[in-house]
Amino acid sequence: MSNELTTNVQDLMLQRDYLGIKRILEKSHPSDIAKVLADLLPDAAGFVFRLLPKDLAIDVFDFMDVDGKQMLLHSLSSDMVATILNEMSQDDRTELFEELPAKVVKKYLSLLSEKERQVANMLLGYPEDSAGRLMTTAFVDLKEHQTVDEALAHVRATAPDKETIYHLYVISKDRKLLGGLSLRELILAPGSKLIRDIMNPEIKKVSTDTDQEDVARIFEDYDLIVLPVVDSEGRLVGIITHDDVLDIVREEDTEDIHLMGGLGAPEETYFSLSIAEDVKRRGGWLALLILLESFSGNILKTYSASLEAAIALSFFIPMLIDTGGNAGTQSSTLITRGLATGEIDKNHSRTILLREMITGVILGVILGAFAYVRAYFMQGDPMIGFVVGISLFVVLLVSNLVGALLPLLAMKLKCDPAVMAGPFLTTIVDVVGLMVYFEVARVIMGLG
Amino acid sequence: MSNELTTNVQDLMLQRDYLGIKRILEKSHPSDIAKVLADLLPDAAGFVFRLLPKDLAIDVFDFMDVDGKQMLLHSLSSDMVATILNEMSQDDRTELFEELPAKVVKKYLSLLSEKERQVANMLLGYPEDSAGRLMTTAFVDLKEHQTVDEALAHVRATAPDKETIYHLYVISKDRKLLGGLSLRELILAPGSKLIRDIMNPEIKKVSTDTDQEDVARIFEDYDLIVLPVVDSEGRLVGIITHDDVLDIVREEDTEDIHLMGGLGAPEETYFSLSIAEDVKRRGGWLALLILLESFSGNILKTYSASLEAAIALSFFIPMLIDTGGNAGTQSSTLITRGLATGEIDKNHSRTILLREMITGVILGVILGAFAYVRAYFMQGDPMIGFVVGISLFVVLLVSNLVGALLPLLAMKLKCDPAVMAGPFLTTIVDVVGLMVYFEVARVIMGLG
Repeated sequence: MSNELTTNVQDLMLQRDYLGIKRILEKSHPSDIAKVLADLLPDAAGFVFRLLPKDLAIDVFDFMDVDGKQMLLHSLSSDMVATILNEMSQDDRTELFEELPAKVVKKYLSLLSEKERQVANMLLGYPEDSAGRLMTTAFVDLKEHQTVDEALAHVRATAPDKETIYHLYVISKDRKLLGGLSLRELILAPGSKLIRDIMNPEIKKVSTDTDQEDVARIFEDYDLIVLPVVDSEGRLVGIITHDDVLDIVREEDTEDIHLMGGLGAPEETYFSLSIAEDVKRRGGWLALLILLESFSGNILKTYSASLEAAIALSFFIPMLIDTGGNAGTQSSTLITRGLATGEIDKNHSRTILLREMITGVILGVILGAFAYVRAYFMQGDPMIGFVVGISLFVVLLVSNLVGALLPLLAMKLKCDPAVMAGPFLTTIVDVVGLMVYFEVARVIMGLG
Repeated sequence: MSNELTTNVQDLMLQRDYLGIKRILEKSHPSDIAKVLADLLPDAAGFVFRLLPKDLAIDVFDFMDVDGKQMLLHSLSSDMVATILNEMSQDDRTELFEELPAKVVKKYLSLLSEKERQVANMLLGYPEDSAGRLMTTAFVDLKEHQTVDEALAHVRATAPDKETIYHLYVISKDRKLLGGLSLRELILAPGSKLIRDIMNPEIKKVSTDTDQEDVARIFEDYDLIVLPVVDSEGRLVGIITHDDVLDIVREEDTEDIHLMGGLGAPEETYFSLSIAEDVKRRGGWLALLILLESFSGNILKTYSASLEAAIALSFFIPMLIDTGGNAGTQSSTLITRGLATGEIDKNHSRTILLREMITGVILGVILGAFAYVRAYFMQGDPMIGFVVGISLFVVLLVSNLVGALLPLLAMKLKCDPAVMAGPFLTTIVDVVGLMVYFEVARVIMGLG
């Protein structure tokens, strides 16, 4: 869809048919136009953008990603930049300003109208990843003593400038949030009724410093389209709309997935990272792992006499440590995901550890027996089979428990549980696994 | 919030103050009541549910998860079951029926009104994970020759039974979708205008068999609240609402995370799986890994003469294979996530492989040098250092490429890329890593 549109626009550019470009873009969805601009070279994107009528241009701008927005602003006249910055969504503007260098933000702030500048400064004043950063002040507010007809007239009059008109909020004289109602309820109510009598006084709200993950969870739990935000005095200061929530969920899930995959600095998409940055964030974790693996190297060194006496022991080392690592990853994945979706909280710690212990014992018995058989067939030596089987049992039990403990511990220490699924887990499982392996071998085979 | 409510309800139950329960629940949000019911024992939940007024009861039911719904239905009279099944959201009903045994579905279908039974059967006829399964038929449709005033009267008259009234769809006499408009546009238009003249003919739509992942992506790309669904003839058959989309995104992300974590059967939450099921799905993957690791065991066996001649070689095996596994996991995580969010598609294959090769070479040189130094310090033997460093270089290059290739291959084979990040990656990296290691050792140290 947008690929086709890009090709059409490029063809028309070559033919210098600028009116043609204008005509097909005016019929397109702002989101598709934003994708076309992202596919074009910066100069061409700026040129095409200037062909758009003002209102469409602003809609298109809102749909671009932050990198695209930055690039586009560079290629526009400062008049055009001022128009866009004044009329774009306030929440998108906050997101854009977050990414820009302080000097550029200062320049852009000076292009805003007095009123918008105050709003922008207020929104930037809230902590990162907080509800305050996500909100817009373009909501419809009603008074409690208005009639339904008066309220409807107010909605009609102010609708064009508002982010949404489907949820309306009732405030007192000192701007305290008293309640809310949907446009549906307003339309269905008799015209002479008072807002006070039809509003719902118990509505969900968050405060400006509520974390964005909690915001997303409230949207999910209550199937909301809009969520009002109040300050510490209970005054209505903004609303958060549903479209921001999907972005938060995607962003948080990507962050978790990257952390679990052993990628240090999260939140970046694949192509937005340069190779140098990519090497840096991957290399750091890998180097840490190489250092931590000194422990397992030293254990093997300690037991080198045993190894020399029974070289066949070495054949099972990869299987043993990889299986332990995989089982630990399974547990930590389950727990980390459960914590992220809110299914698991700190009250469940004991239940989880018990459950992982039981699972570990069962898996250990079954797979330990399986490994015994495999080792026996491979080496024809029941002693080696016993050593491998018993060690695998212990390794599975330990790795299951460690895999569950690490994310729970991370949560207690208030760091992201997803971090723990990486090198630490591998190292702990390797060290414990190898020690158990050689100690069992020492006892059963009478080595070293 | 809901914990507190649960405690209050339990206290009132003990005091047999059923009127008190009724009173506090009537003031609570249906989502919070649903959480209270989930926390209570089945019998108590059924009892409390019966205290609720009918409309609230239906709202609460919609907010419960599928397991909770099943349990609750068991404890209600068939009159009450019939009421709920007839009045609950159609999309939630489809989801519920998907999970129930065929016999129960048949019984429940017989409790539906003629009209609702037809709808339910139609919705269940669409493929799993398709748009048809997610939709509801409770939309507002307008005719093109209606005036704005007539349309508004129609909206008011039908609003109470509709899932949403904020997006309205215009259909022809044979029910073909002609266009759409928002309630906002309708309210702001002059009363005598024709719908035909204010509707937007270019609206986003999907067909009944569109995959739910694509549905979610369209919602994200276009910031939608509602998406209309048409059949193969272009007739409007239903709408999908925003609240389903968050669930899809969470579900798809959980599925990916579980698959990447080496957990076979995805989509289940932590506590919804019994320990036996849990053991089965984890054990299968782990057993597969143990079998596949026969390859690495055999390689070690092949080179046992080299190992006996230089036992120190074994000290670095865990570091080598773990680092390879981690680097491969990093690549495959990045690529798999990029595929899931739509950032990467099949046109990028060549770019990605080139990029991973470059990253692999850079990481290989830096970390290979690092490993050389570490091995030299540990063993005081520059030869061992060379063998470890050179092998690590090759391992990092190979694991980066394999980590990128496997998800791309999975996409080509039309299976889920996330599956590939598990045991296969580990095994390939182990086998290649060990072979390279001992071959390099043979050449440099003149072994075997």
